[in-house]
Amino acid sequence: MKKILNDPNEAAAELLDGLVDYYNGKVIKVGPGAIALSDIADDKVGLLVGGGAGHEPIYHGLIGPGMADGAACGDIFAAPPPNIILEATRAVNKGKGVLYLYGNYAGDLMNFKIAAQLAAAEGIKVETVLIWDDVASAPPSKKEDRRGIAGLIPIVKLAGAAADIAKDLDELVSLVTNARDNTRSVGVALSPGSIPATGKPTFELDEDSIGIGMGIHGEQGVGIEKMMSADALAEKMVDLILADDLPIGLGDEVLVLINSLGATTMMECLIVLKKVKAILVEKGVSIYDVMLGPLVTCQEMAGLSISFTKLNDTLKPLWDAPCSSLGYTKL
Amino acid sequence: MKKILNDPNEAAAELLDGLVDYYNGKVIKVGPGAIALSDIADDKVGLLVGGGAGHEPIYHGLIGPGMADGAACGDIFAAPPPNIILEATRAVNKGKGVLYLYGNYAGDLMNFKIAAQLAAAEGIKVETVLIWDDVASAPPSKKEDRRGIAGLIPIVKLAGAAADIAKDLDELVSLVTNARDNTRSVGVALSPGSIPATGKPTFELDEDSIGIGMGIHGEQGVGIEKMMSADALAEKMVDLILADDLPIGLGDEVLVLINSLGATTMMECLIVLKKVKAILVEKGVSIYDVMLGPLVTCQEMAGLSISFTKLNDTLKPLWDAPCSSLGYTKL
Repeated sequence: MKKILNDPNEAAAELLDGLVDYYNGKVIKVGPGAIALSDIADDKVGLLVGGGAGHEPIYHGLIGPGMADGAACGDIFAAPPPNIILEATRAVNKGKGVLYLYGNYAGDLMNFKIAAQLAAAEGIKVETVLIWDDVASAPPSKKEDRRGIAGLIPIVKLAGAAADIAKDLDELVSLVTNARDNTRSVGVALSPGSIPATGKPTFELDEDSIGIGMGIHGEQGVGIEKMMSADALAEKMVDLILADDLPIGLGDEVLVLINSLGATTMMECLIVLKKVKAILVEKGVSIYDVMLGPLVTCQEMAGLSISFTKLNDTLKPLWDAPCSSLGYTKL
Repeated sequence: MKKILNDPNEAAAELLDGLVDYYNGKVIKVGPGAIALSDIADDKVGLLVGGGAGHEPIYHGLIGPGMADGAACGDIFAAPPPNIILEATRAVNKGKGVLYLYGNYAGDLMNFKIAAQLAAAEGIKVETVLIWDDVASAPPSKKEDRRGIAGLIPIVKLAGAAADIAKDLDELVSLVTNARDNTRSVGVALSPGSIPATGKPTFELDEDSIGIGMGIHGEQGVGIEKMMSADALAEKMVDLILADDLPIGLGDEVLVLINSLGATTMMECLIVLKKVKAILVEKGVSIYDVMLGPLVTCQEMAGLSISFTKLNDTLKPLWDAPCSSLGYTKL
């Protein structure tokens, strides 16, 4: 596996420097693994995201106007350490506290919790909303066991808009919880990515098999099946989402995200979108907006995920607000 | 090679339908292979782009406000036929004529020329600016032999802004020629993409070799070399651009694009950006803005390209204008 790297063990550090270069003055580095917007409004509640590197553009590529204020970046596929999260917290705190918004993985959970305690000891108020949109990772009754996958994209975008208008941290928690609770995703894995430091695949899968609901690191899903057509796959994935506990039906409006896990082409994502739209139209569900592309990736992993966010009167104006970041920009 | 498709021979047609679904009402299909914005201002000069499918998001994913007005889409890796280009031309013509802006490939050249003649016979004025930014494909004295690669992204964005302000077709030609003549790119290929209908690789390359200047379909570049570090590669590629006939040096301002050809990760692109920025800073060249990601792809091909657009007083306000499309959005 050829990769364009210098020292593979320095990949996370180097990509973060490159990310600061991408933002070209709009983002500053705060310590070794944290970044923040260089210009954060003085009276706003802070929005902090974070997670392991190697899944770019998430999470550190989601900061910008109308998006997150800062990000804590871990090593490749590893949660950011508490001290890095704390440095990021200080950078985005403007006196009104900070919301931590990140994916529900054990390492992230542990480190963000420690950081929240350290921040509290410094007088910084912190609240947390966990992202757990993956319906294939646990039943609806055990949401706290679900993984966070690509649904984090609409959730962070809605949270970014919410952080611009929330008068306090409690209001922000309520708005972001609304976004999180109305978002569901399911993924499919076709072939693994590789670990930058070793070149080894992140999981194994037979040549003609696909993993329905498999996580972005190869975590167990709902079953291994034979490769199937785009239409059959889209149908199966949409069924899984619609069978979950969030009612989506006649008259509802949704945001649709078709996310490539890395090497899966935009061609394939568009073909899946075509079928997803046909299914929704048949059910009388309207598409309010579409996101599509490699937004939550695991190196050159092949596969994709489908996410729906069901809109309501609170979420719609948050979606309509413009935003800008490496990962997602909306005019 | 697993791909998420229905009938592989219908991939181009299906992805175009999916693209119209992505645009969610803002884009209409005009005949079997052409799309146009549903709302084009009545007094504007039309901007039409186009090319083969399979390289998404280009070209058909580059239409939107501040970007192209329409696109003609060919089959996978094949130029759009003249009748499709003609249908797209009619759709974007508002009486002030249409600029054709596309990459310098034999098939596209032939078909767009025929379409221009057919359009002229209907009284539609058409002019053409060819994109030939790839410095590795021919010497500066033979620009008309150069291929169009990822430099098309800043060129189409600048052209979209230009089409919104140009009072006539001649002015648009002049503005877009300015953008084209100030843009240079060079690519590197690490591994091939695959042809959707056959699963066969688009070219061959040894496990430890990379193709400097190789085209996005595997066309000959300036040489096959052994795999090297990101820094060494960035240096070699930037040297090739700066050795070309466009002087870029102390005090100049450039747009930088690091384009992934498909499977190459954003992690790698960011690491390359870090080195590119360091080289430019050392030469006293300022970066005005950065684009980064899989914008001009060839399926799951691995590799990337570097593009510079040298800004001037005419181009800078065109860059500053907002735009929106599947491929590139700027707030």
